[in-house]
Amino acid sequence: MRAGKEPARDQIELSEVMYALSDPVRLEIVAFLAQRGEQPCSTCCVDMPKSSLSHHYKVLRETGVISTRIEGTRHYNSLRSDDLNTRFPGLLGSVVEAIHNRH
Amino acid sequence: MRAGKEPARDQIELSEVMYALSDPVRLEIVAFLAQRGEQPCSTCCVDMPKSSLSHHYKVLRETGVISTRIEGTRHYNSLRSDDLNTRFPGLLGSVVEAIHNRH
Repeated sequence: MRAGKEPARDQIELSEVMYALSDPVRLEIVAFLAQRGEQPCSTCCVDMPKSSLSHHYKVLRETGVISTRIEGTRHYNSLRSDDLNTRFPGLLGSVVEAIHNRH
Repeated sequence: MRAGKEPARDQIELSEVMYALSDPVRLEIVAFLAQRGEQPCSTCCVDMPKSSLSHHYKVLRETGVISTRIEGTRHYNSLRSDDLNTRFPGLLGSVVEAIHNRH
């Protein structure tokens, strides 16, 4: 089962993906998922209130950056790498590299 | 002479560049400058009020995406390709390709 609304591949908009990536916390989440693959919400590296984190996951999901799978009471998030690489070749890889280069 | 404040190369922030690229008009400006090189403000492809366009150029300039050179009464804009490619290798190219692929 999938959570909330996720745009189909051909409805992912570049400007909306850019907006999703314009926040440092969301960039951390993207870097985390790029490194670890699918993860439950609770394991992300970011130390912040659950409600704030849920908002960031929602933005990433509704813009097509991540997909959320529900299994029982847990939510598992993963990057939509295939969809993003098809829509915008090279973009996700260069963003992830840029996130790592910041540190 | 340079217009307004432009961040030094090492002060260009990924999240701020992403924000600058989260607007369809600003993406059009980036695609236009990528194709044409340095251009006066007035020649951009976007048909909109001058004040709105000035705002978009300001966002692009203050986040480090473009540089504005003043010569007499004219403002010339260009992408900061070298700075962006040094800070975030491959990012600008993949964004420009993604803009073209939208159409």
